[in-house]
Amino acid sequence: MSPTKAPFQPTPAPQIAALNPYVPGKPISELERELGIRESVKLASNENPLGPGEKARAAYAQAAMELGRYPDGGGFALRQALARHHGVDAEMVTIGNGSNDVLDLVARTFLHPGRESVFSQHAFAVYPIAIQAVGATPQVAPALDHGHDLDAMATLVNEKTGVVWIANPNNPTGTWLTAEPLKDFIASLPKTCICVLDEAYIEYVSDPDFPNGVAWLDDFPNLIVTRTFSKIHGLAALRVGYGLSHPRAAELMNRVRHPFNVNAPAQAAAVAALEDQDHIARSAELNRVGLAQFSGGLQALGLEIIPSLGNFVTVDLGRPAGPVDQALLREGVICRPVANYGLPNHLRISIGLETENARCLAALGKVLGKEPGGEVLTA
Amino acid sequence: MSPTKAPFQPTPAPQIAALNPYVPGKPISELERELGIRESVKLASNENPLGPGEKARAAYAQAAMELGRYPDGGGFALRQALARHHGVDAEMVTIGNGSNDVLDLVARTFLHPGRESVFSQHAFAVYPIAIQAVGATPQVAPALDHGHDLDAMATLVNEKTGVVWIANPNNPTGTWLTAEPLKDFIASLPKTCICVLDEAYIEYVSDPDFPNGVAWLDDFPNLIVTRTFSKIHGLAALRVGYGLSHPRAAELMNRVRHPFNVNAPAQAAAVAALEDQDHIARSAELNRVGLAQFSGGLQALGLEIIPSLGNFVTVDLGRPAGPVDQALLREGVICRPVANYGLPNHLRISIGLETENARCLAALGKVLGKEPGGEVLTA
Repeated sequence: MSPTKAPFQPTPAPQIAALNPYVPGKPISELERELGIRESVKLASNENPLGPGEKARAAYAQAAMELGRYPDGGGFALRQALARHHGVDAEMVTIGNGSNDVLDLVARTFLHPGRESVFSQHAFAVYPIAIQAVGATPQVAPALDHGHDLDAMATLVNEKTGVVWIANPNNPTGTWLTAEPLKDFIASLPKTCICVLDEAYIEYVSDPDFPNGVAWLDDFPNLIVTRTFSKIHGLAALRVGYGLSHPRAAELMNRVRHPFNVNAPAQAAAVAALEDQDHIARSAELNRVGLAQFSGGLQALGLEIIPSLGNFVTVDLGRPAGPVDQALLREGVICRPVANYGLPNHLRISIGLETENARCLAALGKVLGKEPGGEVLTA
Repeated sequence: MSPTKAPFQPTPAPQIAALNPYVPGKPISELERELGIRESVKLASNENPLGPGEKARAAYAQAAMELGRYPDGGGFALRQALARHHGVDAEMVTIGNGSNDVLDLVARTFLHPGRESVFSQHAFAVYPIAIQAVGATPQVAPALDHGHDLDAMATLVNEKTGVVWIANPNNPTGTWLTAEPLKDFIASLPKTCICVLDEAYIEYVSDPDFPNGVAWLDDFPNLIVTRTFSKIHGLAALRVGYGLSHPRAAELMNRVRHPFNVNAPAQAAAVAALEDQDHIARSAELNRVGLAQFSGGLQALGLEIIPSLGNFVTVDLGRPAGPVDQALLREGVICRPVANYGLPNHLRISIGLETENARCLAALGKVLGKEPGGEVLTA
């Protein structure tokens, strides 16, 4: 059957008509086939190159016994485990099909047409999509040194602001905010305004003075902290994220949450991952070493990186990143151009295994016509 | 940390304030622990008692190799497989985190405050939730013999109606509509009104004359057919559903779909399940035999069932079902009371394995104080 020939006459909700259509990228296997490459190095999605630890793998395998049964709709065991892990009550936990789902639940619950929502230039692309999908008005604050400018954000907040979004560390720039200005900013918000603190990358930060939003939940009933199992826990394939908040915020978000939003193996693997401190430590150390490898390697190529606390570096190529990215693809190295984040000359590179990082640096040197530490070979 | 003591001051969107809070049920393992029972028989959620077939199990196991990588955001392989299977174009396929997700995408895309949406009494509980979550107005048509009354539904349709929902066969009643009146009804709808035809249970129907909505997509650009992998495919744990529709409807729904809404093992297992015709045939046959076992067994207990084409029977206990359900739980048999569907005297029983069905029938006889075929022993 070919697509139906008759005209499609239903009209979407006004905010949907204004949303940009989603254009799915090709899966890597298709890309490899088209480009005729194999064994490509994937440094595009800020994944943990080690994947999950043994405990999560075992839980995943065990979940094969019950694939015919619905997941636990309330996420009982996972919420209990998260509550224990963070020292909060289980009713403060909202589980999501990735933290994207939690971010979307925040927008659906606390935004609507007529409300405004503030986020920073170069911040995570899901914020504006979630805002626009419910018909609220996005307000973008200009960035400062590629990171959040809290003063600029504060000037956009008014009585119509329903949600303010902060990522710390930020994706795709890796920039971060320190405790005092961040806490002052949250304290300065109207009590009616939700503050989302997206801490997807926080487990990579070793500095004990780095702000941990969970510790502030008692101070700020309007604070929602989001975390994910897709980064340091190495479970991106399974889609598990969560929010920690005042119980009332969690209860409201649970009204729109699909009861079975996190599937069964995902819940089981996440519970196991949370307790695997060895794997978390190993992953953080691998990232620390890889970050240094890239910092040095990119400097040797004469390239400037944005200082990063995440599991990625975003590098200024000094020229449009698109063609460089295409050339890297032909070398079998997949990175992420970030022109859609307002950074057309930058390339985001996820930290991989040492050999993957080395292959990426070599390919970048070749593509840019540079030898590490040497002079420019071609224009 | 205890739940924060400060008052929560943000206000939710108006439609969220009006939604009933979601109260998660306890997982079965907790229920068993509390009731001191083991090896309970779970006939509560219309699952396939065989679980998935070997092909889907193998795909699930294989997906363990890539748990650290994000799923394919476009669902390329799954959409291709579904398009081949149904003889439609891939751009007519919308994948969902269970068909619940697709139903919710329909509501988010085609409803908004000021629009109305029509469904039947005793229809699937997700329809009114999806409608109310976007602030549209639900219009409920009274049922006819526990099933959809198309004439009653038609009288509720007007120029403000954005979406009409039909489940065929219906859950939780098992009732169905035949081809001619159903096709006439869809043809009578305004061309601007979306018709959702929810066919979650269709693979259990063997009658070749049973209406297959996919065959009507060319006739009705406003038709969206939804299907699921949670029923006959035995993959309820993994959450995969899909919609088939005019490409324009799919493109609009994809704007609000989360790119990674179906996780990686779920996509892989679904592709494999679709090709496992042996498992589908085996599951349908098991259901056919079990349906006859329950029909006979419940009649022998003097109980009336609603005729069903699904993988469940809904039985009139002639008294409030709640206490009977509680007594069955103490016997280790878990069924589904459907008072929340406006059927306070009915109990929905999923078809299980032969031994499970027998155990349920025996427990029901004991609880009701009846011997099969015998007289009432206690009031």
